[in-house]
Amino acid sequence: MTTNAYLADCRARLAFDLLSNTWNPVLIWVLRDGPKRPGELRARIGGISPKVLTETLRRLEFNGLVIRHAHDAAPPRVEYELTPLGRTLLDPIGALGAWAFEHGDEVMAAQDRLGG
Amino acid sequence: MTTNAYLADCRARLAFDLLSNTWNPVLIWVLRDGPKRPGELRARIGGISPKVLTETLRRLEFNGLVIRHAHDAAPPRVEYELTPLGRTLLDPIGALGAWAFEHGDEVMAAQDRLGG
Repeated sequence: MTTNAYLADCRARLAFDLLSNTWNPVLIWVLRDGPKRPGELRARIGGISPKVLTETLRRLEFNGLVIRHAHDAAPPRVEYELTPLGRTLLDPIGALGAWAFEHGDEVMAAQDRLGG
Repeated sequence: MTTNAYLADCRARLAFDLLSNTWNPVLIWVLRDGPKRPGELRARIGGISPKVLTETLRRLEFNGLVIRHAHDAAPPRVEYELTPLGRTLLDPIGALGAWAFEHGDEVMAAQDRLGG
């Protein structure tokens, strides 16, 4: 696989596009331990509006990473769950999170130095 | 580390923000085997305008991931190189690329199914 093949192939860019909205990986990560209702998701994440949460969940659903369950109840209960495909992203997302914890300070120090 | 701590910490979101522009990881990946001139970078990547390339390189420089070398020559020669910090992102970026190769078809199949 050459550099060129790697970069020209749309599929290679797909993972970055999927994570190009910061909320996508955050949502996937929060869903890792099982199905959640929209209210639970908002409570766990913080700083996400109901509108953006809905948009993000629809995008993840469209890409086959999340599935929506509508339970017959009064009031109707909706839950979102990672698909097996969505679960395959947990490892790479976890690796990025670990990177941020290890190197975040260095990036912020560079920003201070170059932005000051 | 609780879910909440993970998500509320700005540093945890840093990696996703850094990769939230698709060009950032692409540039980092192309620079993995050594310093490159802007023209080489454009030739290898394809589909990136000189303006966007310059903006992306500045952003990576600002975050301490890339360093710019200006060589005294006629005409002046400029090269960009990954910093040691920038190199630490190669592993997580490679993992995402590998994910895309393995699962890209499944994502595109879901898009076809749900978008049709």
